[in-house]
Amino acid sequence: HVTGDIVEAVRDADLVVIATPVLSIGEVAAAVAPHLKPGATLTDVGSTKATIAEAFRAPELAKVFPIPGHPIAGTEQSGPDAGFAELFEGRWTILTPLAEREDEAYAAAVAKLSAFWRSFGAQVELMEEKHHDLVLAVVSHLPHLIAYTIVGSAADLENVTENEVIKYSASGFRDFTRIAASDPTMWRDIFVANKDAVLEMLGRFTEDLQAMSRAIRWGDADTLHAHFTRTRAIRRGIVAAGQERSE
Amino acid sequence: HVTGDIVEAVRDADLVVIATPVLSIGEVAAAVAPHLKPGATLTDVGSTKATIAEAFRAPELAKVFPIPGHPIAGTEQSGPDAGFAELFEGRWTILTPLAEREDEAYAAAVAKLSAFWRSFGAQVELMEEKHHDLVLAVVSHLPHLIAYTIVGSAADLENVTENEVIKYSASGFRDFTRIAASDPTMWRDIFVANKDAVLEMLGRFTEDLQAMSRAIRWGDADTLHAHFTRTRAIRRGIVAAGQERSE
Repeated sequence: HVTGDIVEAVRDADLVVIATPVLSIGEVAAAVAPHLKPGATLTDVGSTKATIAEAFRAPELAKVFPIPGHPIAGTEQSGPDAGFAELFEGRWTILTPLAEREDEAYAAAVAKLSAFWRSFGAQVELMEEKHHDLVLAVVSHLPHLIAYTIVGSAADLENVTENEVIKYSASGFRDFTRIAASDPTMWRDIFVANKDAVLEMLGRFTEDLQAMSRAIRWGDADTLHAHFTRTRAIRRGIVAAGQERSE
Repeated sequence: HVTGDIVEAVRDADLVVIATPVLSIGEVAAAVAPHLKPGATLTDVGSTKATIAEAFRAPELAKVFPIPGHPIAGTEQSGPDAGFAELFEGRWTILTPLAEREDEAYAAAVAKLSAFWRSFGAQVELMEEKHHDLVLAVVSHLPHLIAYTIVGSAADLENVTENEVIKYSASGFRDFTRIAASDPTMWRDIFVANKDAVLEMLGRFTEDLQAMSRAIRWGDADTLHAHFTRTRAIRRGIVAAGQERSE
């Protein structure tokens, strides 16, 4: 159920943006559906898209233009106070329009929503929802899972104190802690919603980590050197693409 | 062997700082040993300390004060051009004095070397060399290994392009790429030199990652939420300790 305030807010809205943890987005969409103005655009900002696209296909939403969306921007902070004017500048927003909505009016709504995101400085990309979830499993979900895990592993050590971990964190560990401070509910929902893609990526990563472990155990210096040389190119690509602010 | 330039440079030096990849530090120390002034201080800036402490115990170095050292500061850049005036400000430098050198003159050399590091704004901590290597395995070596690995895993995918990884890297992946751009020779040496501690930490991390994987596979939302909540405290500690510049 939705409160009177929300009914009031969506009744005349041309655009409704659902910004809740991903497992709630479908429920919120269903709850507001009866109150939406026909021809309104309904979107969201969730970090997974397949389950949301599914929810947006509900018959009750046929009278509006449901367009799943994901602005790839943000910090480890959450909530309205974590926003700032330049948040979306130079960042990408991915929209995953419903493939079966081929009418011109729907295409016009997608164009309008794209323009909305561009007005904040974002670049917009259209993508199939399952591909979005695979890409995000690599660039976001797996990194967050790893960061959450290593920070937990470090906190559990009996021969290295938490104070030592904190004091000497500038040597690499610190880079992982930023994303491990992200909102727990938001991230719990992401891993539940994008289970298959995350487990697939995690499997590949674990295999690669075992190969590195083996190279270390056997003192295979050449394998280590070759691997470490290769990864620099990706970093240079990120800096060149302007996706790193601090350099 | 060492060049005439180096012999010339160390001959009258009160302090000699070896700044090479860790596997070469012992060799460099042995090569310069005959040319050092009696009573000089010999130190290094390598990221592992046990193998270096061992090399610094060579009889040829009995006439000087060998003090292994590690300033915990730096970026993914390397070489003389990567330095800047504030590099050590507010950061920690760990010294691992040789336990068997209990004379007052050695203690005075340690105090003088500590003052040297403090003059750049660093804080100094004395530590046993094996404990240093364990602490660094957690806060630095394992994070670098993981970062190098995930960046490689992402580059190997056949259904997600490298261009997509770069474009959407702001969602978490980017944080890992900075340290994966570090010098390959330096890091190859670190993993060879600190094998045991790195493999021990890697084993713990892998176990914890398997537990997270299992929680995702079984949809154990409560376990995920509890873990994600716990890791925030460490991040707050790092920010409070002033080891994060960007906040």
